[in-house]
Amino acid sequence: MTETVDFPEFEPPERQPAHWLSTSDIRRARAQLPIVYVDAVPVRIDSAGDVVEVGILLRVTENGQITRALVSGRVMYHERIRDALVRHVEKDLGPMALPSIPASPQPFTVAEYFPTPGITPYFDPRQHAVSLAYVVPVRGDCAPQQDALELAWLTPEQALHPDVLAEMSGGQDVLLRQALAYVGRL
Amino acid sequence: MTETVDFPEFEPPERQPAHWLSTSDIRRARAQLPIVYVDAVPVRIDSAGDVVEVGILLRVTENGQITRALVSGRVMYHERIRDALVRHVEKDLGPMALPSIPASPQPFTVAEYFPTPGITPYFDPRQHAVSLAYVVPVRGDCAPQQDALELAWLTPEQALHPDVLAEMSGGQDVLLRQALAYVGRL
Amino acid sequence: MTETVDFPEFEPPERQPAHWLSTSDIRRARAQLPIVYVDAVPVRIDSAGDVVEVGILLRVTENGQITRALVSGRVMYHERIRDALVRHVEKDLGPMALPSIPASPQPFTVAEYFPTPGITPYFDPRQHAVSLAYVVPVRGDCAPQQDALELAWLTPEQALHPDVLAEMSGGQDVLLRQALAYVGRL
Amino acid sequence: MTETVDFPEFEPPERQPAHWLSTSDIRRARAQLPIVYVDAVPVRIDSAGDVVEVGILLRVTENGQITRALVSGRVMYHERIRDALVRHVEKDLGPMALPSIPASPQPFTVAEYFPTPGITPYFDPRQHAVSLAYVVPVRGDCAPQQDALELAWLTPEQALHPDVLAEMSGGQDVLLRQALAYVGRL
Repeated sequence: MTETVDFPEFEPPERQPAHWLSTSDIRRARAQLPIVYVDAVPVRIDSAGDVVEVGILLRVTENGQITRALVSGRVMYHERIRDALVRHVEKDLGPMALPSIPASPQPFTVAEYFPTPGITPYFDPRQHAVSLAYVVPVRGDCAPQQDALELAWLTPEQALHPDVLAEMSGGQDVLLRQALAYVGRL
Repeated sequence: MTETVDFPEFEPPERQPAHWLSTSDIRRARAQLPIVYVDAVPVRIDSAGDVVEVGILLRVTENGQITRALVSGRVMYHERIRDALVRHVEKDLGPMALPSIPASPQPFTVAEYFPTPGITPYFDPRQHAVSLAYVVPVRGDCAPQQDALELAWLTPEQALHPDVLAEMSGGQDVLLRQALAYVGRL
Repeated sequence: MTETVDFPEFEPPERQPAHWLSTSDIRRARAQLPIVYVDAVPVRIDSAGDVVEVGILLRVTENGQITRALVSGRVMYHERIRDALVRHVEKDLGPMALPSIPASPQPFTVAEYFPTPGITPYFDPRQHAVSLAYVVPVRGDCAPQQDALELAWLTPEQALHPDVLAEMSGGQDVLLRQALAYVGRL
Repeated sequence: MTETVDFPEFEPPERQPAHWLSTSDIRRARAQLPIVYVDAVPVRIDSAGDVVEVGILLRVTENGQITRALVSGRVMYHERIRDALVRHVEKDLGPMALPSIPASPQPFTVAEYFPTPGITPYFDPRQHAVSLAYVVPVRGDCAPQQDALELAWLTPEQALHPDVLAEMSGGQDVLLRQALAYVGRL
């Protein structure tokens, strides 16, 4: 997941209800309730809608290890799914990405990240997250907004390479393959 | 919604993590985080899968008013969506309902119940609920488990009658019509 | 349907296999085999993907009657579904419509037009058509390519008005409502 | 595909319209029109809808080669998709299979079998088939109806083994993986 900056203090103030969650409240809720998430698989499509490239976030850790991730993050209180998708895509791909948020709220799947590994293919040690997963075509220029972050555009074939999948964690390799199955490019 | 008995104290103890939510915690979380829900539209299908009847819960209030509702309720911490569907269907239709929980986690829609009316077609004054909605065929005998509750089986045509839809609240009339659109019986 | 010009002689010659269907062959096949179709519901979406307008084709007949239709037409031999969608959208909305063909081939429903009324909600006296139905956002300028044809952009609420639905035929009013159910605007 | 007995002469006579297709007509239409198909992936599910086994047809050819296939076949003139699903499942799994045909006509994907390899992942040298693909839970006893045919129930993990996938042809290995992606068992 890419939620390192996904904390309430970074939300525009006008969106915050009076009783917004403190960091300790978030930590507590995460131990007690499933948290609503969205996962977005950014894609480039051609004029017939066929997926030609998949965007995967790439981070080089301090000790030189590469990790890859999909766009992912929490849905806020009083925030629509589609607004959360816009916010997280812009957070990770920049304000010029021009995402085409799907017209329908029907996700291609629901990824259930459990804090216990093995119950589902998805795992998140911090929490039980129920994540609605969407394929999101982007038409604009993408520029990751954080220092350590890069965006790699890969063909479906490249994205499905075992070496690439092995650099994803928490089951996002499975989710990526589900996304490519959904668009007919598995 | 049908969540009158959907409180932690009714959960089987073996499912409760040590730090289960108290009633006041639930109330607090509901004011601060979107809550994960499931909505189920129980149906009778024929041998070709065609929907012949829709099951709608019916409650007569003390002053004689009729309200109708779909099967609906919260997803617990560390509970899979499909287990929450089983639990809520059995809670409302009884242990002999024999629901056919969908093989795929892809819902037919996501109903976003906001505490503020007008933002989406769905409204819940208690909370912001993000509800994954499924059509659930049931093959067994249905017997609502609470005194004031009945279950009415209606044909799609009867279910779409304005008088019936008018007895549903919180936008569940819209959700019911979406379910019938999804199965080709709008 | 809008298939008045959807005959083989209007297809670009380079697409025609050597043994292309003659008009009499088409007529004969239509009496013997289900024909593959696509239905497209053109929409305008906002930056969050929410449908703000639906495009409905409008034709004034010689005696002044108004009929409304979705974009619809046959899938050719050796043509992909997504290429058929591009072709029919451009045929009806013009070459500058800039349709966003869905990345996934999963349709929101399958409309089975039977030559006998009453078997499904869809009816086509000419044939048994199995039509894959998609919601297609368009971003460009739309200009219908035939004289008698106009394109009306309606809000979802306007499109659902009984007077508008009554001007559609063959069950396309049902299909339009299914499309709006799918995008959460029923 | 499993269409060896899927010829008009095996259809119940009461279903045949007066002008039913002769074998030579079928051959001719196949060279000129996309043909409507259904693909069904039979599964065993547990009480929570989770897929525990996938049914794959298995045929030993005269020279001892094993080939595997999904349930698949043509949709007849004036036949509903859901009736075609029942017919083909019963044809391949026997009359006691008790399939749960999906309530919704929305397929999990559309497999476009082209007579030319490489255009899509699916290939059928005989024809251009547009196949609506469904996951179909079966609850009864399955007994293949043809001599050379067997049915193997495999866990999702077994079904995804490269040796198993290698015994499928025409891209049905891709379709099987798409089905398992759809049910969350990829």
